[in-house]
Amino acid sequence: MHTVNAYAATSATEPLSPTTIERREVGPRDVLIEIKYCGICHSDIHHARSEWGEQTYPVVPGHEIAGIVTAVGSEVTKFDVGDRAGVGCLVDSCRECVNCRAGREQYCVQGGGTLTFGSVDKDGRLTQGGYSTHITVDQDFVLKLPRNVDLAQVAPLLCAGITTYSPLRHWGAGPGKKVAVIGLGGLGHMAVKFAHAMGAEVTVLSQSLKKMDDGLRLGADHYYATSDPETFEKLAGTFDLIVNTVSAKLDLDAYLGLLAVDGALVNVGAPAEPLSLHVFSLLMKGRSFAGSLIGGLPETQEMLDFCDEHGIGAEVEVIPAEKINEAYDRVLASDVRYRFVIDTTTLA
Amino acid sequence: MHTVNAYAATSATEPLSPTTIERREVGPRDVLIEIKYCGICHSDIHHARSEWGEQTYPVVPGHEIAGIVTAVGSEVTKFDVGDRAGVGCLVDSCRECVNCRAGREQYCVQGGGTLTFGSVDKDGRLTQGGYSTHITVDQDFVLKLPRNVDLAQVAPLLCAGITTYSPLRHWGAGPGKKVAVIGLGGLGHMAVKFAHAMGAEVTVLSQSLKKMDDGLRLGADHYYATSDPETFEKLAGTFDLIVNTVSAKLDLDAYLGLLAVDGALVNVGAPAEPLSLHVFSLLMKGRSFAGSLIGGLPETQEMLDFCDEHGIGAEVEVIPAEKINEAYDRVLASDVRYRFVIDTTTLA
Repeated sequence: MHTVNAYAATSATEPLSPTTIERREVGPRDVLIEIKYCGICHSDIHHARSEWGEQTYPVVPGHEIAGIVTAVGSEVTKFDVGDRAGVGCLVDSCRECVNCRAGREQYCVQGGGTLTFGSVDKDGRLTQGGYSTHITVDQDFVLKLPRNVDLAQVAPLLCAGITTYSPLRHWGAGPGKKVAVIGLGGLGHMAVKFAHAMGAEVTVLSQSLKKMDDGLRLGADHYYATSDPETFEKLAGTFDLIVNTVSAKLDLDAYLGLLAVDGALVNVGAPAEPLSLHVFSLLMKGRSFAGSLIGGLPETQEMLDFCDEHGIGAEVEVIPAEKINEAYDRVLASDVRYRFVIDTTTLA
Repeated sequence: MHTVNAYAATSATEPLSPTTIERREVGPRDVLIEIKYCGICHSDIHHARSEWGEQTYPVVPGHEIAGIVTAVGSEVTKFDVGDRAGVGCLVDSCRECVNCRAGREQYCVQGGGTLTFGSVDKDGRLTQGGYSTHITVDQDFVLKLPRNVDLAQVAPLLCAGITTYSPLRHWGAGPGKKVAVIGLGGLGHMAVKFAHAMGAEVTVLSQSLKKMDDGLRLGADHYYATSDPETFEKLAGTFDLIVNTVSAKLDLDAYLGLLAVDGALVNVGAPAEPLSLHVFSLLMKGRSFAGSLIGGLPETQEMLDFCDEHGIGAEVEVIPAEKINEAYDRVLASDVRYRFVIDTTTLA
């Protein structure tokens, strides 16, 4: 065990505060990463506040981890000391089920794998996330990071990136395809960058036109306000794929009406309440309503390689650790363009 | 114009009764078919009773039409007198929109094409369906029928057949895939036959085990009662594809829970009320909820050729025209194994 600095929630209602946690010794297959940056994902807030089920405190959130390898175990072959290395939402899984064997570890039948924080690890201890200076992870769950992108901009790729990359790939975004992205936030701005880089014609569907300049700069070809009912008339039957990054409840039938024949509306966020739809909205053009959850390790690596090749990173606002609570408030107020990233060296 | 015998609804509330209707003269590209058999589809009843919007009476229902060509226009190349010929749900479409050009005429942007009955045809007259002795249809909307299958068993392929074949093909039913069919009725029994012939492992999910012997005989490998809650536990995460042939409202989250990673639940019927689902049910395994509406002309022909090759027809109960009203009552009571087919020669 070695003690490292971290920032933790100590209850569902208190602000996060500085603390120390124990990381395990570097085992034969482990990689020790000195964390440089960790993104703030909306789900960090849900977990820290026990909004998605009761947590055991303290909780150190953070699953958008980018850093530098400082030690490797004797059997580690994938990484050397000094390499850039990243960790996303998972640090382990059963590795034996049909989904793990297919590289879809996020769908591991043993409860969806071991989450980077708030899960029980194989040694029986609770996992703790990236709001800390170091983390020890099995090499199979450590990712190689782009070398041509600023490391702060790389961190959010580990969750926001793969969450949007995966449905775009699965549903065939590319040249000749019309792709819409609902919401231009932490997830949405990545979806726009990816869909554009994949060669698709990209439309942002946002509540207002407030962020239109940004949207077009990030790669969107069109930008429409969903508060304007004419948007739904004008774009009826248009899109091959719509990626919905908004977790608020929305009028599914209205959005399904924007899909062309065989089109799919894919949710990457989960509204807490059930949604309602008329099956007729699906039948009439052979449409689908689908969900997508982060991505497995192989696809996450593919996404990172894609980012390296295309020079893609997130748009970030880097903050010191002491501003985490303020950042949480601003995330909830949608006041960030487009992802907060903690400079974890401020914890040292 | 020439006058032919038919069976028609004269109002939303009266029983159907014998009548005569006018068919157009055979134009250069037309095929005149002497109808031998016409299946009774549940949607015939909805239309006859104005349950899906007010109809103009009389309405001659019927879009599962199988017969013999008795005359062809001067430019007809696809058919000769004496050939078997069929007509499904469509007798025309705009032929120019992106969907028509792609052979997806059922999704024609001009209102989904010209329906076989109850639509306004290009000559301004209402189309009338297959509960009659003859029909005149443009050759592009006439289908070649299997020669190795009893003609009475062929008729239901034109709607029940293509409605279930299309989603099975689209979603990749075949060897190594686990396919479930919800409901063993007119549509469901065809889905079982097709999925089995395509090489998939087929499971019927029916309210009870009442029709289990039939299901297994038709090609199912497994048969479960959905009234038994253990079914949903036992089969959780099992299927690559579920085809839902039941239009009643059902617990979508429970059925989505039966899908494996990347699995799809496809509705071919449209419940009148909206359905509700938790997006979480989709997210957790990258699942889809989709719709599928009949099929275009090329795919309908492909399905008929597949039936010819595999000797597939519907399980039918052939009735004389005078039993149509009784058959309607029995369809509503689910008292048919598995499709009523009118012997339209009894109208002559």
